[in-house]
This record gives sequence, structure tokens and C-alpha cells, in this order.
Amino acid sequence: MTTTATTARERMLLAKEASRTVGLLDDARKTEALHAIADAIERAADEISAANGEDLERGRATGLSTALQDRLRLDVPRISALATAVRDIAALPDPVGRILDERTLPNGISLTKVSVPFGVVGSIYEARPNVTVDIAALALRSGNAVVLRGGSAAERTNAALIRAMRGALADQGIDPEAIQTVDDFGRDGARELMQARGLIDVLVPRGSAQLIETVVTESSVPVIETGAGVVHIVLDESAPLEWARDIVVNAKVQRPSVCNSVETVLVLSDAASRLIPPVVEALQAQGVTVHGDDVVAGLADGIVPATEEDWATEHLSLDISVRVVDDLDEALDHIRRYSTHHTESIITRDEANAERFLAEVDSAVVMANASTRFTDGGEFGFGAEVGISTQKLHARGPMGLPELTSTKWLARGVGQVRG
Amino acid sequence: MTTTATTARERMLLAKEASRTVGLLDDARKTEALHAIADAIERAADEISAANGEDLERGRATGLSTALQDRLRLDVPRISALATAVRDIAALPDPVGRILDERTLPNGISLTKVSVPFGVVGSIYEARPNVTVDIAALALRSGNAVVLRGGSAAERTNAALIRAMRGALADQGIDPEAIQTVDDFGRDGARELMQARGLIDVLVPRGSAQLIETVVTESSVPVIETGAGVVHIVLDESAPLEWARDIVVNAKVQRPSVCNSVETVLVLSDAASRLIPPVVEALQAQGVTVHGDDVVAGLADGIVPATEEDWATEHLSLDISVRVVDDLDEALDHIRRYSTHHTESIITRDEANAERFLAEVDSAVVMANASTRFTDGGEFGFGAEVGISTQKLHARGPMGLPELTSTKWLARGVGQVRG
Repeated sequence: MTTTATTARERMLLAKEASRTVGLLDDARKTEALHAIADAIERAADEISAANGEDLERGRATGLSTALQDRLRLDVPRISALATAVRDIAALPDPVGRILDERTLPNGISLTKVSVPFGVVGSIYEARPNVTVDIAALALRSGNAVVLRGGSAAERTNAALIRAMRGALADQGIDPEAIQTVDDFGRDGARELMQARGLIDVLVPRGSAQLIETVVTESSVPVIETGAGVVHIVLDESAPLEWARDIVVNAKVQRPSVCNSVETVLVLSDAASRLIPPVVEALQAQGVTVHGDDVVAGLADGIVPATEEDWATEHLSLDISVRVVDDLDEALDHIRRYSTHHTESIITRDEANAERFLAEVDSAVVMANASTRFTDGGEFGFGAEVGISTQKLHARGPMGLPELTSTKWLARGVGQVRG
Repeated sequence: MTTTATTARERMLLAKEASRTVGLLDDARKTEALHAIADAIERAADEISAANGEDLERGRATGLSTALQDRLRLDVPRISALATAVRDIAALPDPVGRILDERTLPNGISLTKVSVPFGVVGSIYEARPNVTVDIAALALRSGNAVVLRGGSAAERTNAALIRAMRGALADQGIDPEAIQTVDDFGRDGARELMQARGLIDVLVPRGSAQLIETVVTESSVPVIETGAGVVHIVLDESAPLEWARDIVVNAKVQRPSVCNSVETVLVLSDAASRLIPPVVEALQAQGVTVHGDDVVAGLADGIVPATEEDWATEHLSLDISVRVVDDLDEALDHIRRYSTHHTESIITRDEANAERFLAEVDSAVVMANASTRFTDGGEFGFGAEVGISTQKLHARGPMGLPELTSTKWLARGVGQVRG
């Protein structure tokens, strides 16, 4: 199911038009449509896989790194996993039509605040074809049309996925223009998306810090900033060794390439000689390179000297920065300076330190005695994750389906006028 | 109490620093501080009034319109009213620290979502000195620091008001840098405010459609778009004459210069001959100029021919546009095309028409049988109004104090790691 629109703007206009009818679909219709999409993706597995093969071949020819090739790869098991993810989203409660506030004014006017779809959600992301399906399904579940702009390296794969999804909508009698791509317009498509005030209600970038920075600074449509995580763990004097070691290792090693993995450990000086040797040893045993300051280097072997740049770096690899600080004040100062306001955790038995940390750290998720890897929509019980917002407007932290809705006030009167 | 900071950026850094301590103040301390501010404004009445006199004199010399001079004027009764408004804000419940969600994960981690201050709120507005005090008080009540940029015509008045407010904070042992102005840096100050990512957490423009447009398109910090209102009222076949006439007149005449006043009336053709003559007559009796299409001109005297431009115009004056449409579909089409998504109302006895209108119109407030003038934080019972958001992100419609807060997830564990 391809569109007749020939410009990025025309596609966005069609999405806007489609958003009117999609926004009025009830729970059952949206659920059916999502099942139809999952089925269509599975039916089109060969075609999707062939398109992905072309993208991969082009990627190899143009020197795409092995890691990026792996993110781009969509074999049959991964295609099945995509369909399963869509069915999981279909099973989530409809976030539209929730009554969020009700009040009757003294003059008798009844006011109701209800959740409504945004209208058109835009997304700019990198060459991860799973995001194409994920965002489209989340948008439809929440009654939104969607305009997608994926990485050019995945262009053919995305086109095949979008064709399958649009076909499924058309089969269900739903306007297929509710799912759009501007991939084929290259950078101009992305630029038009970022400037489409009145057509795009919210834009969600997903990808590297640099991509997000570009979208935030170049967009005139409202953006939800997601992702970048220079994440800290603080170990204080009272931190049990077992918690400190297990949490730091888990937060670094379990999946180093994601935003909620820890990048910097701050150890209060009173705890340094007790905790640094075993924690560093446990990290090194898992293949982690430890970048440390002089005190750390004096307490453990194999330390790479930490540079100023390390403190500000989201390694996203088996690298970690470790610094000894005088006290909790200095730890909080360090976090204020280098944190990207994603997630920070303190490991402590001291209730006062824990509560002070929870109150004063200005991040989306602030933890005491837990692995930063728990900052995740799935772990939080949201059933799906749109992204992790690191801004303070609209949504902060893991975003679920309700974060893809706006609100509307309905007022019902019997002729009241203002006195 | 003046600051030592010599650049706009330094002032914003000081505001950011101050936001840390202001954000931790409890309800009682913020209430006391607001009373101190109200008292300080009253004590400084002579100084404020003298500064305002200088601004007014400069305004007259530079040809400021009488209407703008009136908005700028701050005599002693108006200064008292400002102080009273601050005391009213002091009496509102603290929006910080509300528990918005609580859950315990299967692994025992306790999650709490709490409301927290944004940090630093910026505002760019026109030469209305009352906004200076209003926004500063609302920001402080919600635990935020504030950076203000008012119209240059009010520069001396604003400086006097800000001096009084900062002095009150200092007397209360609160960091006075929590209230900042960048007025004295002219357009550069505004530009730096709009680009201060990492320092300004949210920017709220208040003023003309043009000012808001500039702020939205030129800002890289998150913005809440407020205000512009091309507001519609639809009259259908079943609309009682009395409701139609009273509501249209009230919505246009009671305060024509504000955003929730009606600009366009759409009359379904079946209702045209019954409703248009008496409604137009009632409007004209109140001095309203009616811009109408040919059908309207055939039904009533003294109609100015409506132009395409009229439908898109926020008159903000005793002018109104009236158009006859075939049916509700055409009315909804017209609204989709010209509305600024602020407020629309339908006057009808037909339940199906009312519910369809409420469901399909994509505006912040959608009404049946009530005057659009009710779209107002005070009328909605919020106690204060930060502005009326016409965007869908974060807040939509009248914004009260809770809309000046963000959220934070607190996670409390006992050493949990992710499996």
C-alpha cells in the first residue's frame, strides 16, 4: 500500500487528515488493527527480509560498522519478534478517553478533562528497523497518526515494513495514510518534519546524543528529548560491599550499550579503601576498563588515568569512570555538573543520605540501592516504552502509552454566560 | 536588591543555582516569602509608581498607543491589586511533593512518582508590569526560580518591581537570585533566554500572536505556547434563540480584548433566518461591527462584507465574523481550517450534535451551550492562571500551578539488580 503523495509536506497533510478518523477509533478497532499489522508483518517476512538484505549489502559496501550492521539486520526470527511486540502493544489498555479531572462550576457548567490522542506523532531515529514498527504500533494504540524518518541505511527495510503496515490498515478499513514515512526525501524530509508546525503535534527523536541534539535545536515543533545517559552511582561509607559490587557490575555489564547503564561511580573517601579494590576487581573480571583518578589508581591495579572528558562521556561500552570524592556534597556537585539527568543511584545504609540524595538529585529517576538498569518502561510495568524522556516538560523518565496522549477539557452547559 | 551579574548568561546561571535551594523550600517558607513580597511591593509603591511615570513619559514621547499606555500604567490602586494577587497565590496549595503514582515492582523496589519544580522558568512578555509580579509569584509558589524578559516600554517599572521582590527574598533568607530579569540586555537578552538549553527548563511566552510565534520558532529550550484565540461559536437548528443571543453577545462583548472572546459565529443554514436577525441586532446594539457573508447580509442590515482574511483573524475588538454553513460537517471543516485550537462552543438542544462537536473538535476547551469566556484558570477554579496553553504537550488549556511542576521517579531498593 503506497501513497500517492509526492512531497514530504503532502504526506504530513495526509497523516493529519488520517489522524481525525484514527483518533476516533474505539479500543476494539485499534486492537484488531494492531493484530492485522502483526499478521501482515509475518506474512511479508520474505519481502522484508529481502529488502533488509539489500540494505545490509549496501551497508557492507559503504563500510557500515559490524555493530550497526547487527542493529540493522532483520532475519525471520527478528521479524517474528517484531510481530509479537505489536501483539503485546495491542494487549495494553487504551490510553485514550481516560477521565483525568471532573468538576462542576458554581454556575452549573460540568467540566471533564479527558485524554485524547496528540494527533500526529513524528519520530526521527537511526537505522534500527524495529523502531519503525514499535513507534507505529504505539502511535496507533494511542489513536495517533505517525510520520517516520528512519536512518537512510535502513531505507528499504523500513519501506517494506511500512508497506505491510499500511496494507493491514487498508484491509481493516482504516485510512492507511495514518502511517507515513519521509525516508525517501533524505535530509530534506527530516528538515520538513522538524519544521512542520501545525502538522506534527510532537516529535520524538530516538538515537545517539548527537541526533537528539540536532532534533532539539533544529525543530520548531514540540520535541520530547530522550535518551542520553551519563548515569552515576554513588557509594557511601555505609554501603554494603555486596550491594555496591553487585549493583555497579550489573549496571555496567548487563547491557553496556544502553542509556541506563552506569558510566561513573563516585566513591565517598571514607569508603574508598574498603570498596574500591573489590568493586574494581569485579568489574575487571567482567572485562571492564576502569578509568580512575589518582586515589583509585593507588588502590587498584590496571587503572587507566581518568581525564576531564571521561566524566562527561557516555561510554556505552565496557568502560567506566571511577572517582573518589570527599563527601556527599562533592558527589552531588559532580552529578550536577556532569549528569544528563537520566538516572542516578546511591548505595547506602544511611537513611539520611538516601533521602537527601533522592530529594536533591535533579534527574528523571533517582534511586537508592538499586541498579540503574531498572529505568525502563518494561521494568516499570508500563508494558511498552516510547523512550526515556530526559526533559522536564510533558513526560520525564520512561514514557508509556499515556505519554502519547494529550488532554482536552469538555464543558457542558445550559446557556451559561460570564458575569 | 540588585545583582552583581553582568551578562544575561551569568544571571541565568545564578537563577539555576538559586533554583536548587528554592526547590527544597517547604510550603510554609514559600508562603511567608510570598507575603513578604506582597508587603515589599506595597512598601515600594512610591518608587514603583515613579519608575512607571518615567516609562509612561517615554511611551508618550515615542508614540505608544493609548491602549498600550493603559496596560503599562501602574498607579497606587493597581499596585495594591498586585500585592493582593500575590497574597492570593500564597494561599494556594503547594503543587510540589504531590504523589502522582506509586507502585512496587515484583522484585520489591518501591517506585514513587512525585511532583517537583521545573527548576528555572523563563517568561517573555509584553509591557504589562502585572505579568512581572504574577509570573514571579507563581514560579516561587511552585518552587521555581524565574528569569523574566518584559517589554522594553516597561523596563523601569519592571526593574523597580523586581528590586522590591528580590529585597523581600533576601530579607527572608532566601537566595534573591531566584528572581532575575534580562530586560537590560534588550533583544540579546531575549535571544539568550530562548537558547539557554540546560539553564532554562521551560519558557512561557505571554502576549501577541506575533510574540508567541517568534518565541516558538526561535527557541531551543522547551516552550509552552499560549494564547492566540480565533474562537468559534456554532449555532445549529435546535439552538434556543435566548442561549444563542446571550452567549454570542457575552462571548464577544464582555471583554473583547482577550483570547477567549469569540471571533467567528458559524450558523447552520437551517437556523439562519431564525437566528441571524436577532443575534446580529443584539450584537449591533452593543456596538459590535458584524462582518458577514452574502447570506448574512441578506438577513440583516449594516453587515460589512466578510473577507477570507476575516475568518483567520483574531479581532480582539468589537468586530465579529458571521458565516452561514450548510451543516455541522461544514462547520467542523471551517473550524479545522481557521481555529487556533483554543476554545470552540456549540449552541444546541441536539444531544447528538453536541457530543459529536465535543468529540471531534480538536481544541484545548470544547463547549456545548456555554460562553467561551469561561476558558480561564480562575473560572475553572485553579485559583491562578499561568496562561492558556494552545499546544498539546505538557499542558493544554488554562494552566494552574500544577502545570509549573515536572515529575521525578524515586526508586527505593535493597540491593536489587536486573536479571
